[in-house]
Amino acid sequence: MKQISLNKIEIIKVIAGIKNTENDLLAIEEPLEIKIATSIDNLKIQKSISVTMRTPANDAELALGFLYTEGLISNANQVLKVEENYLFQENVVLITLQKEVELDLKNTERNFYTTSSCGVCGKSSIDAVISKLYRANISTITTKSSVLIGLADTLRNSQEVFNKTGGLHASAIFDNDGKLLYMREDVGRHNALDKVIGYAFQNNLLPLSNCILLLSGRISFELVQKAAVAGIAIIAAIGAPSSLAVQLGTEQNLTLIGFLRGNNYNIYCGSQRIID
Amino acid sequence: MKQISLNKIEIIKVIAGIKNTENDLLAIEEPLEIKIATSIDNLKIQKSISVTMRTPANDAELALGFLYTEGLISNANQVLKVEENYLFQENVVLITLQKEVELDLKNTERNFYTTSSCGVCGKSSIDAVISKLYRANISTITTKSSVLIGLADTLRNSQEVFNKTGGLHASAIFDNDGKLLYMREDVGRHNALDKVIGYAFQNNLLPLSNCILLLSGRISFELVQKAAVAGIAIIAAIGAPSSLAVQLGTEQNLTLIGFLRGNNYNIYCGSQRIID
Repeated sequence: MKQISLNKIEIIKVIAGIKNTENDLLAIEEPLEIKIATSIDNLKIQKSISVTMRTPANDAELALGFLYTEGLISNANQVLKVEENYLFQENVVLITLQKEVELDLKNTERNFYTTSSCGVCGKSSIDAVISKLYRANISTITTKSSVLIGLADTLRNSQEVFNKTGGLHASAIFDNDGKLLYMREDVGRHNALDKVIGYAFQNNLLPLSNCILLLSGRISFELVQKAAVAGIAIIAAIGAPSSLAVQLGTEQNLTLIGFLRGNNYNIYCGSQRIID
Repeated sequence: MKQISLNKIEIIKVIAGIKNTENDLLAIEEPLEIKIATSIDNLKIQKSISVTMRTPANDAELALGFLYTEGLISNANQVLKVEENYLFQENVVLITLQKEVELDLKNTERNFYTTSSCGVCGKSSIDAVISKLYRANISTITTKSSVLIGLADTLRNSQEVFNKTGGLHASAIFDNDGKLLYMREDVGRHNALDKVIGYAFQNNLLPLSNCILLLSGRISFELVQKAAVAGIAIIAAIGAPSSLAVQLGTEQNLTLIGFLRGNNYNIYCGSQRIID
């Protein structure tokens, strides 16, 4: 995992009416353009797939995780190379696919066309949002209450940038004994999840059937969708799930845990995976 | 403001290892498709502009606020009618524009093409994200420290759904004496802001030059951008700003307040507007 750099600025801190100038650290937010290079009939084509506001670091993981969870690529063999800072442009990552990879660009156009907002990421109709196909079989992994209640502390202790800025979301992958395997932070919660999934993609660790995902914030539909694509069956979060997140979790037979705080938590669906 | 309905479900609540079945309330998240109907050379055209995951309620405001902050419409006279539940489809809103309104659909295509992620909302290149034009002159409004520190309590007391679910973001508009004018809640923070701006749009209250915006969470680049388009000069938030939010705020001569908690807050830029 690369170091996330922080932006140092001078702020005015007001405490009980008293103003003081202090140095402060900000979580960096910058746009990243994700481009794909591919060949169609020996014609090389570059295509801009997405622009996302992200915290710079692990851009390759972010791009791969995004393409994977959006269903455009399915395994590391399809990727010839990944270039961060493409042509010395700091905020561009270019993914070059193997020649034989068939990328349905028309389908891509349709998918990414007319969409613009947070949480849907590339579906041109409501049906398309709901009918997303999952390629992974949902795992029968189980874990213990005593493991779950330890996850939040482990994440918080490892979430260095959040501790400095209060400004980042985190996604962390644990094994079912509660051991932290890897975590990523980002200003965008979907980016933090794409980054951990992208790391797993790069290292041929997918599907993550035997892992637990911990989210630092709330559980949206989009996050459940991405987790399901990656084969994750237990999703825990410090915050609340949305209605559609629980609906999708229930339909896909996933386990959703919310409000994981101290010794307490809520099980929204899939309680059979919590065995004590 | 319409009532936000909540989703009632049965959950398992685990407190110190003891499991109990309880009823719980979830914040509703559902996709909304925003469509525009317009006329070109007497030809009627319908176009899908965006799909966003939102909390149902005030869909007309959301659609109008989105189109306004994205620069597609600039005043209420351009809108002939707004139809929520268009053709009995619950999650579709259709905005019919006046005949004479020139909508550059090619430009729309370019804008919304290839984008898919949170926080950028419809820009097809990084340059386009950064170079967004603001139509409002930035206001010289001032306010007092004593007003600022009261805003968070006022918001929390009025944020009914959040209090029930812990799952919603809020955007609230105050006058510079700290009086709450209107607020909206949504699972997406950009939607909550689009809704308050959409309300102002419908009621010819724009630009909001004499108002303070309070955000329940963090301040992203996108939220500063939307606020600036609406002429808001003082943006306060319970959470942290990102680096790009502060950069944009500084460039646009806005006032950004973060970590507004109890009697304390941080001023990131534009301190001249806080006069005591």
